[in-house]
Amino acid sequence: MLTLYYAKGSSALAPHILLEEVGAEYAVHEVPITKGAHNEPAYLEINPKARVPALMTPNGVITENPAILTYIAAIHPQAHMLPDTPFERAEADALCAYLCATAHVAFAHLLRGARWADSEEAHASMKAKVVNNLRDCAKLVETHHLKGPWAMGERYTFCDPYLFLMPRWMGKVGVDVSDYPKLAEHHNAMLHRPATLAVMAVHGI
Amino acid sequence: MLTLYYAKGSSALAPHILLEEVGAEYAVHEVPITKGAHNEPAYLEINPKARVPALMTPNGVITENPAILTYIAAIHPQAHMLPDTPFERAEADALCAYLCATAHVAFAHLLRGARWADSEEAHASMKAKVVNNLRDCAKLVETHHLKGPWAMGERYTFCDPYLFLMPRWMGKVGVDVSDYPKLAEHHNAMLHRPATLAVMAVHGI
Repeated sequence: MLTLYYAKGSSALAPHILLEEVGAEYAVHEVPITKGAHNEPAYLEINPKARVPALMTPNGVITENPAILTYIAAIHPQAHMLPDTPFERAEADALCAYLCATAHVAFAHLLRGARWADSEEAHASMKAKVVNNLRDCAKLVETHHLKGPWAMGERYTFCDPYLFLMPRWMGKVGVDVSDYPKLAEHHNAMLHRPATLAVMAVHGI
Repeated sequence: MLTLYYAKGSSALAPHILLEEVGAEYAVHEVPITKGAHNEPAYLEINPKARVPALMTPNGVITENPAILTYIAAIHPQAHMLPDTPFERAEADALCAYLCATAHVAFAHLLRGARWADSEEAHASMKAKVVNNLRDCAKLVETHHLKGPWAMGERYTFCDPYLFLMPRWMGKVGVDVSDYPKLAEHHNAMLHRPATLAVMAVHGI
């Protein structure tokens, strides 16, 4: 049995959707970060990073979206969510690393600037750059990391629900996904999958 | 044949060391970032992100350290650099994601603040926080991501050369690895491996 620790509307959306896609047996445990639940001792026992998502497995806890997504894919081989060759797997892993370390980090400078600087002027300067940075990320993904219609081409894989987050980050700062046709097509295709819709309903979005 | 595009002393050290460890047939191509070579059209054709490392393979280019490291491990199965179970693989992937998206990003705010803010005051505010952030990262890794003596326990795996970078980032801001006994032991063990020493010599460090 798996338990996903999630906050509504957070990046936990990605593994939540993948759990639905693979038909996993799983439970969810909400961690309301707006109430500070991620900093409570009970949750820090689960994930000392004080972040969501975290996935409780029979062997222990997994943190970090790229690791959680590939783990879910690996233990549900019948769902065929991993690419077939080492090179394609590396392409998918590279997209996840880019989303995790560049795109999500770019977005985090909007409201989480306190992670990297203390002065309010610095936070304002960070916020001012988020739009341009997310535009750069969208262009890079559109050109180099998205084969279409799915990230890896004709087949939906573990990285598609992660890519689904990117237009959401863009939308929060007014960057229109329709400026990026392949990304827009991907987002629209995601929005037509029952697993996506079921999870969005749970998240209230 | 593989070709690693690297800059001396950069995070390309990690895949470079892994290529040596697995006995790969590979070439290296230096990209002197201090001379701006990463922004030249010839390199942007290889990696439009203008970053190192990049790995040219018979199938195309792979970017992002977590993807490059796991690809090198996957195509050299005789070297046994991947963990054996999906859970252990996820633990190793989680460490790589943390190094990529949290620890390396924390360090990048020292000299690469222009990625996230334009004002000089913001850059100064970012620099002022790097020491504390890298201390937090070191404590987190020491406590939760490093089984010892190697990251995954008794066996050296693909994530060890990546973890080797962390004390280097810490050292650049005066955070002493000896404050973190397991991390210090790991770093020392890395420094006794012929592959590490051979690659450090190429990087001139």
